[in-house]
Amino acid sequence: MKNTIGNNLTVTLFGESHGTAIGAVIDGMPAGVKIDYELLAEMMGQRKAAGAVSTARHEEDLPEFLSGIKNGVSEGTPIAFVIPNKNVRDKDYSELENIARPGHADYTGHIKYRGNEDALGGGHFSGRLTAALTAAGAICYGMLKEKGIAIGTHIARLKDIEDDPFDETKLNEQIELLNHKNFAVLNDDKGEAMIAAIVEARSEGDSLGGILDTAITGLDAGVGEPEFDSLESLLAHAMFSIPAVKGIEFGAGFRFADMYGSEANDPFAMQDGKVVTTTNNNGGINGGISNGMPIRFRLVIKPTPSISKLQHTINYAAKKETELSISGRHDPAVIHRARVVVEAMSAIVLADALITRYGSLYFGKEKEV
Amino acid sequence: MKNTIGNNLTVTLFGESHGTAIGAVIDGMPAGVKIDYELLAEMMGQRKAAGAVSTARHEEDLPEFLSGIKNGVSEGTPIAFVIPNKNVRDKDYSELENIARPGHADYTGHIKYRGNEDALGGGHFSGRLTAALTAAGAICYGMLKEKGIAIGTHIARLKDIEDDPFDETKLNEQIELLNHKNFAVLNDDKGEAMIAAIVEARSEGDSLGGILDTAITGLDAGVGEPEFDSLESLLAHAMFSIPAVKGIEFGAGFRFADMYGSEANDPFAMQDGKVVTTTNNNGGINGGISNGMPIRFRLVIKPTPSISKLQHTINYAAKKETELSISGRHDPAVIHRARVVVEAMSAIVLADALITRYGSLYFGKEKEV
Amino acid sequence: MKNTIGNNLTVTLFGESHGTAIGAVIDGMPAGVKIDYELLAEMMGQRKAAGAVSTARHEEDLPEFLSGIKNGVSEGTPIAFVIPNKNVRDKDYSELENIARPGHADYTGHIKYRGNEDALGGGHFSGRLTAALTAAGAICYGMLKEKGIAIGTHIARLKDIEDDPFDETKLNEQIELLNHKNFAVLNDDKGEAMIAAIVEARSEGDSLGGILDTAITGLDAGVGEPEFDSLESLLAHAMFSIPAVKGIEFGAGFRFADMYGSEANDPFAMQDGKVVTTTNNNGGINGGISNGMPIRFRLVIKPTPSISKLQHTINYAAKKETELSISGRHDPAVIHRARVVVEAMSAIVLADALITRYGSLYFGKEKEV
Amino acid sequence: MKNTIGNNLTVTLFGESHGTAIGAVIDGMPAGVKIDYELLAEMMGQRKAAGAVSTARHEEDLPEFLSGIKNGVSEGTPIAFVIPNKNVRDKDYSELENIARPGHADYTGHIKYRGNEDALGGGHFSGRLTAALTAAGAICYGMLKEKGIAIGTHIARLKDIEDDPFDETKLNEQIELLNHKNFAVLNDDKGEAMIAAIVEARSEGDSLGGILDTAITGLDAGVGEPEFDSLESLLAHAMFSIPAVKGIEFGAGFRFADMYGSEANDPFAMQDGKVVTTTNNNGGINGGISNGMPIRFRLVIKPTPSISKLQHTINYAAKKETELSISGRHDPAVIHRARVVVEAMSAIVLADALITRYGSLYFGKEKEV
Repeated sequence: MKNTIGNNLTVTLFGESHGTAIGAVIDGMPAGVKIDYELLAEMMGQRKAAGAVSTARHEEDLPEFLSGIKNGVSEGTPIAFVIPNKNVRDKDYSELENIARPGHADYTGHIKYRGNEDALGGGHFSGRLTAALTAAGAICYGMLKEKGIAIGTHIARLKDIEDDPFDETKLNEQIELLNHKNFAVLNDDKGEAMIAAIVEARSEGDSLGGILDTAITGLDAGVGEPEFDSLESLLAHAMFSIPAVKGIEFGAGFRFADMYGSEANDPFAMQDGKVVTTTNNNGGINGGISNGMPIRFRLVIKPTPSISKLQHTINYAAKKETELSISGRHDPAVIHRARVVVEAMSAIVLADALITRYGSLYFGKEKEV
Repeated sequence: MKNTIGNNLTVTLFGESHGTAIGAVIDGMPAGVKIDYELLAEMMGQRKAAGAVSTARHEEDLPEFLSGIKNGVSEGTPIAFVIPNKNVRDKDYSELENIARPGHADYTGHIKYRGNEDALGGGHFSGRLTAALTAAGAICYGMLKEKGIAIGTHIARLKDIEDDPFDETKLNEQIELLNHKNFAVLNDDKGEAMIAAIVEARSEGDSLGGILDTAITGLDAGVGEPEFDSLESLLAHAMFSIPAVKGIEFGAGFRFADMYGSEANDPFAMQDGKVVTTTNNNGGINGGISNGMPIRFRLVIKPTPSISKLQHTINYAAKKETELSISGRHDPAVIHRARVVVEAMSAIVLADALITRYGSLYFGKEKEV
Repeated sequence: MKNTIGNNLTVTLFGESHGTAIGAVIDGMPAGVKIDYELLAEMMGQRKAAGAVSTARHEEDLPEFLSGIKNGVSEGTPIAFVIPNKNVRDKDYSELENIARPGHADYTGHIKYRGNEDALGGGHFSGRLTAALTAAGAICYGMLKEKGIAIGTHIARLKDIEDDPFDETKLNEQIELLNHKNFAVLNDDKGEAMIAAIVEARSEGDSLGGILDTAITGLDAGVGEPEFDSLESLLAHAMFSIPAVKGIEFGAGFRFADMYGSEANDPFAMQDGKVVTTTNNNGGINGGISNGMPIRFRLVIKPTPSISKLQHTINYAAKKETELSISGRHDPAVIHRARVVVEAMSAIVLADALITRYGSLYFGKEKEV
Repeated sequence: MKNTIGNNLTVTLFGESHGTAIGAVIDGMPAGVKIDYELLAEMMGQRKAAGAVSTARHEEDLPEFLSGIKNGVSEGTPIAFVIPNKNVRDKDYSELENIARPGHADYTGHIKYRGNEDALGGGHFSGRLTAALTAAGAICYGMLKEKGIAIGTHIARLKDIEDDPFDETKLNEQIELLNHKNFAVLNDDKGEAMIAAIVEARSEGDSLGGILDTAITGLDAGVGEPEFDSLESLLAHAMFSIPAVKGIEFGAGFRFADMYGSEANDPFAMQDGKVVTTTNNNGGINGGISNGMPIRFRLVIKPTPSISKLQHTINYAAKKETELSISGRHDPAVIHRARVVVEAMSAIVLADALITRYGSLYFGKEKEV
C-alpha cells in the first residue's frame, strides 16, 4: 500500500525533502514496550551525514513523538513522530526546475503526479525519508533485542575493495561491533581504503555505490508465510523501498547459478539437541520460512546519482535536451549511511512477522504498578 | 497477505502437491477481457515437464474454470479455477516421512504448521503451485498484450554457460521469439550446451540452477508507487514467491557496486518527441516508478534441491541424524520451466499496477451487443 | 478487498448462481484444527431451502474440499472448497434478459461490469454465494466452540410478529437450542405465526423480511481494534455482505435515540471476581473492544425482491420501461435461512479478531503422533 | 487495519486526547487537487464545541499540514497533518485513575493494552480524534464537490423530537442549507426544541443521543464492489469508527421488517433518458453497488457517556466496586457535532470507492504552467 508497509505492525511514511517535516506512524505497536532511546539516538546518528564521505547538510534528526508513548513506554496506540526539515536550502535547486537529474525520480515523479509534485531535493523520493524509517526501525529493533535477535550489516564491497566476510561462528560478536560503528566494516583497513575511494570520487565530482551484507541471529524457526509473504518476499519488498537499492540476494544468491544441488543444499544436523544446517547457502530460509539459522542477505546500492560532473539530460517541461552539473551539498556515497536503514527495515519486517505468528501480546508487557 | 498477492487485482493461491487439486482465484479482474486461451495453453505448456531435462511426472495441467468467465470473456467477478492433481504417486514419498530434505521446506513447514502439514511432494511449498500462478499470469499477460506490453525471459546463465545478452534495439523481436520457445535462450548453441550440462548433472544424480533475464517493453512512464509499492518492491515481492528464486537485481544490479555515478546514471534524451534514456542501467525504473524504458531484471534460481546423491540430514520427529537419497521423478533443473512463471508473475504485477493507476475500466470493454 | 474479507484469517469468495460452481478459500487457517463435519452439515442444512416457506430449488450444497485438510484436520495451508451448481434452470431467467428486477443487483451489476456480467439468478450477487460463506463460517465456528464461544440468532420480528426476547441470564441454553432449530425462534408459537405470514405472502405472490437478533457468549474482554477495526466495524462490514441485510444495531441500537445517558450507560460491577456490567445496552462492546459481556446485535433483512406480483421496471438495454412478473422458484422469505449465514459471518470475524490478538497458534494444536 | 482505513485512498489516524497532538496521514491522495480551505474551516468549525449544548473545552483545531500540499494544491504524495492538543486539563481526570467510566472504553482499553494506555480524556478512544477525521474528510469532500457530489446530514430525532424528513425532490437545496448550519436540522423549530432538551439534560447532569440522517447526491451508478466491499459494508465500517455510533440503516432500514416485497422493491423507470427508481427504499444501493439514486442512511448516536449524575462502577486496578460522578467539561450531547464527522467519513469512503473504479487520475489535474 503505497506509503504503508506491514501486516500486523505497519509503518506509514510521509514527507518531502524540502517540506515542513517528514515522519511516520507506527500502528499495531505492542503495548508495554520500553522505548530504547539510546539505541534510537545511535541509529539516527549512524544514518546522519558525517565527515568527508558525506553531504555537508547536517540535521539533528531526532524524532519528536506526538502519540503512542507515555513515560517512555509504548501505549499500544499508534506511535506518530515528526522530524522537522530545518536545514533546507531551496536555492540549491532553483536551477534544477524541470530538469531531469539522471538516475533520480524527477522525471518519473513528474509524470506520475502530473507536475504537481514538489521535486526540490528529490521531494518524497528523497533519501531524507529514510530518517523516518530508521527511527521506526530503531523502535522495532529495541523490541527484537529483548527477544535475543541481533541484526548487523557491513559494507562488503565498494568499487573493487572487499571487506572481510562475516564469520558465522562468531556472528553475534561481529554484529555487536558493527552496531556501534559509523563506517561499518569488519576490517578497518579495508574501511580506510573504501573511504579513500569515496574521497577520490568526490574530488572528481563523482560518486560510488557498493554492496551491503546483512546477518540476523536469534530468529526462531517457523517465522514467515508461504507463497506471497515469504520472509524473502517481505524483506525484499521492504529493502527496495530504500532509495538506491537495486538488487538483493539471499544466502549464496547469484552464486547459486554455478553450483550443483549437492553443493547448494544445506545438510541438516543435530547440534546440542537443536536442528541446524552445516552450511547456510539458503541464508536461513527454506520455502520462505525461517529455519533457525542466521538470516543472510546482500544488497547492492547504486552510486549516488547527484554528481557535479557534467551530464546530458532534458528539460521535461520544454521537452528539449540540455546539460547539467549538480552543485550543492551531496553525498559522494550513501552506502555507509544506508546500512543502518537496512537494519531498521529488517527490524520492521521481523517485528511484524513475529506478531503475525505469535500475536499482539508477544512483545511488551503488562504495566508494572 | 500469505496466499493473496496484489492490491486492485489480486491472486489467491491454494493447494498442495499431492492434494485433490491446486488452483487460484483472480479478484478485481476487469470485465470484458477476452481470454486468450491459446496464450494460456502455450504458457502452461512451457511450464510443463518435458524432455530429458525435466521430471517424468506429466500432467495436462490446463485450468478448469469455475467462475468469472462467460463465453470466453471475463465477467468482472472473481475468476476461480482448479487444476486437479491426477498423476500423484504418494509412495515415492513414503520413505521420506519426517525426513528433512535439504534445501526443501519440509522442516520449516513442519515447525510452522506444528506437524499438521501435508509434506508429500513439498505440499503447499511445491513448485507444482506455479501451474496455478502461470494460468493466472497468462490471463493477465493476455490483457497486457492488448495494451502493447511484451514480456520475455531467457536463461542468461547456467553453470558457466552464458547465453547471448538481450539487445535493447530489438527487444520486441527477441521477446516474440522467446515467447514461443520451450527452452528459452537467445543463442540456441548455448541452449544445447546448457541442456547437455543438465543431462550430465542428472546422470550424476545431481542438479543445476541458473540466471533468468527478463525484459518488459511497452510500459508507460509513471506506473508504480513511491516508497513501499515501488515497481521494484512489487516485482521482487512477487518473484520470491516462485520456489528456488534466491536473488533479484534490476538493471545493472550487482554491477553497480563497481561503477561510478557518472557511468551508472542514465542520461535522458529526446527521441522522436519521446523521453528516453541513452543507457538503461536503472532497468526502466527511477524512484520505483517506470520511466518508459524497458523494465529489466535478473533472477537467480538455485539448483533443484531434490537430488538422488546421498545427503546428510535429520529425522525431525526422531530428532536424530540420518542419510537420504531422493528417488522418484524429479527435475535436474527447473530454470527452463521457471522462466514462464517469471513472465506470468510479471504480468500479474503489471496488470495490478496499471489498474491502480488507471482504474478498473482500463482493461476490457463494454459488451458488444 | 472486494471478494476477500479479514486480516489474519481471510475468506475469498467466488462463483455465480448459474456458473459451474461457487466456493471459497480460507487463508490464515490455523494448523491442527479438527474440522467439525457434523456442525458443518447442520449449518449447511439450516441454510438450505426447505418446506413451504422456501424456494423449491434444492441442492445438497456440501462443500467439496480441495486443499488444506488432511485426515479431517487443518494443515495450516489454505482451505479451498467448491460447491457445484447442479440444479440450475437457466430457462427460468430467459425472459429476464436485460430486465432490471426491482430490488436486485441486475442493473447495478450491468453498469459496474459493462454488460459482461452473468446476471442469471443474480449471478455473483446471488444469495446462493452464502452457501460458501456458511461453509467457511462453520469451520470457524467449530474453532470458536473449542474456546467456549457460542453464537446464536433468532428471528426477532417478521411483519408485526415479535418473538420472545433473549434472556441474558440463560443465553447459553437458548443459543444451544437455537443452534439446532431450522426455523430459529425462541417461542415456537410465534414461529408458527411467522410461517403462516410467509405462506400467506407467497400465496399472494409477495414476500417478507424481518429482524434477526444475535447473541455471542464466551468472548474475552480486550478483543477488537481501536478506530477502524472496532468489533462493530468488523461485524457490520461482514454483515452487509449478506444479501438483503439493510441495517445493523448493537445493544440498545436505535432505542438509544430516546434514552438519557444515565439510562444508557452500563454500570460496571464485580461478580465472582469478574468484571461485568449490570445492563448490556452497549452490546458487549465499549470503544470498539469487547468488554466480556455477551455481544449483541440486530440486523434487518429486507423482503425478498423476487416476487411474482406485477412490477414496473425497465429494459436497460433498450432503455425503455416495461412490466415484469417473476416466475420460477423463489423464496417468499429468506430470513430463516439468512440466520445461519449471520452466525457463520460472526464466526469468521471473531476467529480473525482472536488470531489478530493472540496469534496464529491460538487455535489448533501440535499434531499428535 | 486498526488505524488505517481505505483501499486506494487511505487515512491513518493517530493521537490521544491528552497527548501532544492528534493527526492523520492521507495516502493515495490524487495529485493536482486544489485544497478547499474554506470548506475545511467550515467543517472544522461545525465539529467544534460551541454554545450551551457543548463542552466548554475550546480549541481552534485547524490542522497544521506537514507534507503533501504545495501552494494549496495536493502533490500526490501523502498529506500529513497534526492538530496540537493545547487546552488540556489533566487534573480533570486525576480522580478517574483506574475508574471505569460506564459507557466509555477505559476498561476495555485497559485490558487490551495491558495497563499501558493513556486513559486521560478517553485517550486514543476520545471523540477528539474525530477532529482529524473531519479534516481528512473535508479534503475529500472538496474533491467530490468538483465532481458534483453533495453530502448532507441532519439530526432526524433527539429524545422524542423528530425533525422534518428529507424531501428527495429537493435534496440538493436541503443539503446546501445543512452544509452551512451549526445545528443541522431541516426545521429550525424542531432544532430549538432539541436544544432545549439538551440544555435540560445538562441541567440534570445527564446527556442525550439521537438519530442522524444522511443523503448523498450526484454519485454515478456502478460504484462499490460486490460481496465484501459493498458501499454498505464500506460506509458501515467507516461510521462505526465514530465514537457513540451504535447502529446504521440504509434506505427504509429497520422499517423493512414490516414491509412486503411489493412495497419494498423500488420500481425502475426512465426519466429524461436516465434510469431512476420511483421510490428509494434501498437508499441508492442495490447489491452493494450505487444505482444512481441518492445514497440514504441513518445512524444512531448513543447519549454521551460522561455525565455528572452518580454512577455505579468499579476500580479495575483494585478490582472493587465504587461510585462515580464525572465532573469537568463535557458535552451533554455530541450528535450536533458528530454530524459533520459523518459527512467527512462519507467523503473519505466515496473518494476511495471512486478512485478504485476510475483510477488515480480521476480527481485532480495536470499542473497548470
